[in-house]
Amino acid sequence: MDTHNRVLSIQSHVCSGYVGNRAATFPLQLLGYDVDVVNTVQFSNHSGYGRLKGTRTDADQLASILQGLEENGLLRMGRLLTGYVPGAPALMVVADLARKLHARNPELIYLLDPVMGDDNKIYVAPECVPIYKDLLDCATIITPNWFEVELLTGVKLDSPAALQEALRSLHIQHGVPHVVISSLLPTASVSAALPPTIRGDLQPNGVSPTSPYAGDTQLVVCSSLLPEPERTVGNVSVVHVGSVKRIRGYFSGVGDLFSALVLAHFPSPSSPPPQEPDTPLSRATAFATSSVQAILISTHHYVQSLPEQERPETDPELDLRDAERRVRRMRARELRLIQGRDYILNPGQGGKGEGRMIPWEGFWAQHA
Amino acid sequence: MDTHNRVLSIQSHVCSGYVGNRAATFPLQLLGYDVDVVNTVQFSNHSGYGRLKGTRTDADQLASILQGLEENGLLRMGRLLTGYVPGAPALMVVADLARKLHARNPELIYLLDPVMGDDNKIYVAPECVPIYKDLLDCATIITPNWFEVELLTGVKLDSPAALQEALRSLHIQHGVPHVVISSLLPTASVSAALPPTIRGDLQPNGVSPTSPYAGDTQLVVCSSLLPEPERTVGNVSVVHVGSVKRIRGYFSGVGDLFSALVLAHFPSPSSPPPQEPDTPLSRATAFATSSVQAILISTHHYVQSLPEQERPETDPELDLRDAERRVRRMRARELRLIQGRDYILNPGQGGKGEGRMIPWEGFWAQHA
Repeated sequence: MDTHNRVLSIQSHVCSGYVGNRAATFPLQLLGYDVDVVNTVQFSNHSGYGRLKGTRTDADQLASILQGLEENGLLRMGRLLTGYVPGAPALMVVADLARKLHARNPELIYLLDPVMGDDNKIYVAPECVPIYKDLLDCATIITPNWFEVELLTGVKLDSPAALQEALRSLHIQHGVPHVVISSLLPTASVSAALPPTIRGDLQPNGVSPTSPYAGDTQLVVCSSLLPEPERTVGNVSVVHVGSVKRIRGYFSGVGDLFSALVLAHFPSPSSPPPQEPDTPLSRATAFATSSVQAILISTHHYVQSLPEQERPETDPELDLRDAERRVRRMRARELRLIQGRDYILNPGQGGKGEGRMIPWEGFWAQHA
Repeated sequence: MDTHNRVLSIQSHVCSGYVGNRAATFPLQLLGYDVDVVNTVQFSNHSGYGRLKGTRTDADQLASILQGLEENGLLRMGRLLTGYVPGAPALMVVADLARKLHARNPELIYLLDPVMGDDNKIYVAPECVPIYKDLLDCATIITPNWFEVELLTGVKLDSPAALQEALRSLHIQHGVPHVVISSLLPTASVSAALPPTIRGDLQPNGVSPTSPYAGDTQLVVCSSLLPEPERTVGNVSVVHVGSVKRIRGYFSGVGDLFSALVLAHFPSPSSPPPQEPDTPLSRATAFATSSVQAILISTHHYVQSLPEQERPETDPELDLRDAERRVRRMRARELRLIQGRDYILNPGQGGKGEGRMIPWEGFWAQHA
């Protein structure tokens, strides 16, 4: 059994649209992985529509399915991917599994996406936060957004020193080898500390009304713990940073797609290392960022090609008066994942230079 | 919304392995379809393992999910695919949906795989048979095996005349435009009536122990109802036939993969017709047969590459004494679907000439 080409992915399932396992499975399969898919819910559609039907897989059912896999010798995968799990009891079942697989296979590559919230809003039960914290020491890679980093570390990411503190906490205190902060809005002091190329990307640009870009730029930061002999208190990890121009409007499933692609492009231990200054993590992050951004831009262009009434803009007041507005917007803005096949197979072919990850030289030296 | 590139597939889900929706979804996605996936069960693995865990989506839950899709305007697909549905109540829900979509969209392409049994064994509740019979007049394409044709028509397929009678029943009495008999073991009288090239394929060949082939050859028969003005009592449809060398041993999910590929390659009404003597159905059947056969052969070679204890041969007595034998065999023999990406994208590249569909000239004239 080719265990490194086999992934177990535990996430939600929507019948229509692309979030959770529906955003993760196809890209992983396309890139050659046998994906074992455990669905934590079966909903007609994602919750952004404002209404949905379906059922949850409760903690007992989840444990039973995992037991079925175990009994038939089907838990021998080399990679594990977990995302949104509804509720603490089911999350405990997932955590137990991750611990078991981690203990059994020291080479297991576990990408833990600690899906808890975004933009200062938490959307899981508060009991989930400590479960995720406890689980971090089993993870190989985590892909929190900035808000999830704050939840996990208690550090507010508003300065280079805070970023250092959060990464030190995740790497040293929680023992995570590889951290990807999937989105970070830089404060002025963070901007000032960035490598010059990335700082240049942050300059506000005149954005035409027909451009897919909203005008602001986010950072992607990835950080790989240095091996013990090279590590010092003032130099904990190798940090890379990239910039991503934000696309207008909101798309669901982007984080789930990103995590799956980071895992897909993260090499197995036996692979040759990438050319310096890349690290295995920075290359995987660059590929994932590039594919995601290409799919978002093509989704944006698809939305623009629709008749105007099929793509109402976000307007909470109008949405409140007319639930159909929101539903139409959600339908229009489902990721163009299937049509993005070539963006997944050939990351970096978008030609926009997006998805570069630049070494953040001196990250640990500054203010240290 | 590109409705013809959108499929709703209602089948079973297994977390590990490839049957039902797990055999259908990836190939359809790879060939460019947005697939909406409704899972009728979530089981750890397919039933061939002899043990499994998981849950069924009961009739009420199924109806509720479909209602969720309806309420959010997500039932606008141009194609519908239904396969194994456990139990008559859930099947009734699926049948109601098919009727509704068929009534709403006269161009709907509905591939109904009437999964009821194989090799003279029925494996659904007997109440399912009349539900399938009633549903046939909504189907665009059906893909029964020979045993399912017998269940649907009451005709034993042992002669050319019986084949005529069964196809007449399906086309005329039940109103099915396109019929694919996915496997048929030819009797002597059927063999004698075949086109010479296909009859030649049936000659028993010396099979070496290392060959993937078991030694026998099955037929694939497809039949498209002639339009009213050309149709006569003695000339009902255009019939094509192909031969498929049977691969050693049993593989699960083959029929589900085949149906999905027939649907994927069946052109939308606006497509230009294929070159004669091909029909849209014969071409889709040829492509599907070719891809399936290539994947089966590569799966066979994969199985042979495993250590001997990981691939115990079928032996019901030994299996009874040691349940692990059967589990190991099932694990080893899961379809190499992900690794077969290029066989799906480029059908007919296998180079074995398999997947030809030959016009069965004079099919309706003989014995008529």
